[in-house]
Amino acid sequence: MEKTISTAVIKRLPRYYRHIQDLEKAGVFRISSKDLANKLGLTASQIRQDLNCFGGFGQQGYGYNVTNLKEQLAEILGIDKSKTAVLIGVGNIGKALMKNFDFEGSGFKLLAGFDTNPDVIGREFEGVRVLDGHEMKAFMQKNKPDIAILTIPRHIAAVVAKDVVDSGVRGIWNFTNVDLHIENVPIEHVHLSDSLMTLCYNVE
Amino acid sequence: MEKTISTAVIKRLPRYYRHIQDLEKAGVFRISSKDLANKLGLTASQIRQDLNCFGGFGQQGYGYNVTNLKEQLAEILGIDKSKTAVLIGVGNIGKALMKNFDFEGSGFKLLAGFDTNPDVIGREFEGVRVLDGHEMKAFMQKNKPDIAILTIPRHIAAVVAKDVVDSGVRGIWNFTNVDLHIENVPIEHVHLSDSLMTLCYNVE
Repeated sequence: MEKTISTAVIKRLPRYYRHIQDLEKAGVFRISSKDLANKLGLTASQIRQDLNCFGGFGQQGYGYNVTNLKEQLAEILGIDKSKTAVLIGVGNIGKALMKNFDFEGSGFKLLAGFDTNPDVIGREFEGVRVLDGHEMKAFMQKNKPDIAILTIPRHIAAVVAKDVVDSGVRGIWNFTNVDLHIENVPIEHVHLSDSLMTLCYNVE
Repeated sequence: MEKTISTAVIKRLPRYYRHIQDLEKAGVFRISSKDLANKLGLTASQIRQDLNCFGGFGQQGYGYNVTNLKEQLAEILGIDKSKTAVLIGVGNIGKALMKNFDFEGSGFKLLAGFDTNPDVIGREFEGVRVLDGHEMKAFMQKNKPDIAILTIPRHIAAVVAKDVVDSGVRGIWNFTNVDLHIENVPIEHVHLSDSLMTLCYNVE
């Protein structure tokens, strides 16, 4: 798959996927780019353009077959392959993710959580165990997770990020509110405070 | 304040604010747009352009006074005014936010949480009480919160969003993973699964 698609297009793909998934669950069999556009608050031509980056999957006068489009999007996103993840830092946000978040729905199998707090070490959330942070290196060497989820305090963010990348992790889902930059390692930042400040601006 | 600034600029303001805050905490007194750009992975001219939308605050040859820029950004974002918020749905994510999230740092005072589960009603997190969902309407009428934070299951997202807007809320911070649209009501979506799927694409 060519990787020269613009970031803006890539950022829209999960949204398409989510909506197409909802349509499939609702028993919808096919949808026109116009109806899909209405649902998403986009234009039909933008949707066609976006999907054409990957070869298009619609048919003139028919629209998109929902199940087919869902599978194609899953393949493009790579979420049909079940990559693996570890979560580092089982505090409140880490716990909330372990208990509630549908990792498999986003293409990942969560292998383990790590923390140094004896109160959580050994506990299990949704069948996933919290291990001692000191076992992390050995675990990573053995299990080679694709990504690490960082739900640790911000003052250790940079150090732990370097550690996990040195251990072979190829991507980071970053909840630390620190803008991490590591060469050749894709990082997705979840900056909750940025989101709330943007809302603050907009409700003024 | 004119509200015709592009969304892209507005989305960058919280990042500027965060970095400037860090600089201030680190004891930095002034910074050039070039150094700020390096820290942020942007260009100096982009930063100058962005800040010029609001009148600029730098001085040729001097750069930016850190404390001054921080205060200006806080004012632009409106986080110096302490708006008010209620959180609806005190499950794991709701609890994680109540326990950990620095609302005041993003311009909001959290007034209360609401849930219908007797196990959490009456509990307090960081001094904020969880009230019975049935008291919500009366509470909203009396306290007039500026925004509602929706950390409820997705199948009730649309109904509750309508309820809170009918009760006078002027903005929504949406964690439900449903793309809500309500006319004239700014909504900030936190789509964690979109973020993880984007990472999934990028680590392929």
